[in-house]
Amino acid sequence: RPGMVYLVGAGPGDPELLTVKAARLLAGAEVVVYDRLVSPPILDLIGPGTSRIYAGKALDRHHLPQDEINQLLVTLARTGRSVVRLKGGDPYIFGRGSEEAACLAAAGIPFEVVPGITAAAGGAAYAGIPLTHRGLASSVRFLTGHGADNMALCHDWAGLADPNTTLVVYMGLTNLGDIVEQLIAHGMDPATPAAAVQAATTPAQRRVVATVATLAEAVEKADLEPPTLLVLGRVVELAETLAWFGAEAATLARQASG
Amino acid sequence: RPGMVYLVGAGPGDPELLTVKAARLLAGAEVVVYDRLVSPPILDLIGPGTSRIYAGKALDRHHLPQDEINQLLVTLARTGRSVVRLKGGDPYIFGRGSEEAACLAAAGIPFEVVPGITAAAGGAAYAGIPLTHRGLASSVRFLTGHGADNMALCHDWAGLADPNTTLVVYMGLTNLGDIVEQLIAHGMDPATPAAAVQAATTPAQRRVVATVATLAEAVEKADLEPPTLLVLGRVVELAETLAWFGAEAATLARQASG
Repeated sequence: RPGMVYLVGAGPGDPELLTVKAARLLAGAEVVVYDRLVSPPILDLIGPGTSRIYAGKALDRHHLPQDEINQLLVTLARTGRSVVRLKGGDPYIFGRGSEEAACLAAAGIPFEVVPGITAAAGGAAYAGIPLTHRGLASSVRFLTGHGADNMALCHDWAGLADPNTTLVVYMGLTNLGDIVEQLIAHGMDPATPAAAVQAATTPAQRRVVATVATLAEAVEKADLEPPTLLVLGRVVELAETLAWFGAEAATLARQASG
Repeated sequence: RPGMVYLVGAGPGDPELLTVKAARLLAGAEVVVYDRLVSPPILDLIGPGTSRIYAGKALDRHHLPQDEINQLLVTLARTGRSVVRLKGGDPYIFGRGSEEAACLAAAGIPFEVVPGITAAAGGAAYAGIPLTHRGLASSVRFLTGHGADNMALCHDWAGLADPNTTLVVYMGLTNLGDIVEQLIAHGMDPATPAAAVQAATTPAQRRVVATVATLAEAVEKADLEPPTLLVLGRVVELAETLAWFGAEAATLARQASG
């Protein structure tokens, strides 16, 4: 009998943002196959008797191609082991978890999917930027700044420039200049508030607040590094009021007491 | 000194989908103020010595208006108590958590925000419907089927009818007929696969799979009740292959063995 494969979201970084289910499965797994975006304090939760396999991530030099990861999961499960496939964020939001699930289903391997806090939700909560807010955003949209296999970005840009929708761009740092240029060319107000959040929910979180027009320059000046999430929309105007975590909150507190 | 207020997402229903942080805060709270959408097994995690205050939810007959909830949180915190404000899903995705946070900030009450698994992520994972998938959806969009205070729905419908974007509608049951009519009128292919997921991630989960043209009739026939999430887009074509939870998976297993 094949072992069960659990496709598990590890959340955005803070180990306390794992779900109770993910923490239970990690503690009981026989093998964990993990990605580059899973943070070290989460890997520390894996027991000493558990095999760990690093699958890396596209864009990384030492990574397994997706079809080899799919095949690895099938092979491990066929040895009867209980396998946790641990992915940063949520497996079904830019996580390619459904490609792995489809491969397992085709091979007759039983699987379960455990959702995780996606980077947008983690970044929003910890950076003080709600994704929806009465009067500012009635809808929210997630997209990725990298095309599949580095193909050109091919979004419906006109549909993206909606002033009532918060736009969250995953992996948007490399193409940031192109992204804001396209959005402005397709009608987005250049004065729309915009933020970039590096390493959201971790001690390395850093936040830059600017406008769509000035975000690329502000991010370069602050020297932000991946993983960095972009948030564009009127909700960003709340960022200063709602800051509570890390350096941003500390700066505000100093200003208030000074 | 005022107590800390934690604005905490309870996730979609399965108590194991609470975050580790949410579970810790619930166990240690002195007061919990909770909404109608928080599931009973989650309320069972609150200690016997903790005060519980039911804040209900708009559309409910026995609910507190939002400004009274805001004021209640301020008042409780000023007594020095540690307060958990527990909300279904994620506080910053259609949760009105940012209105509460802004009110706390204005009153000088310290607060933290704990993201939760939003209904779309929970429903996707447990109903076998990825929100993004290579070749089927490169972006995902969340909107609500109820306007603020029951105002007319006023979305940018043309922008919503994008074949490469998965559309997730929260609280869409009441206006389902209007929603699909508007989407088709603005260019969405009526044959686009569509699903409705009732009570996602709980033992009461039920899933209906149809097309945008036939969803309203299929949902009526199946007599789905709130809370029900709508998912529209080509990713829904994977729903049968990727089912693993509850009744849908059991049906597929019977078909496979029969």
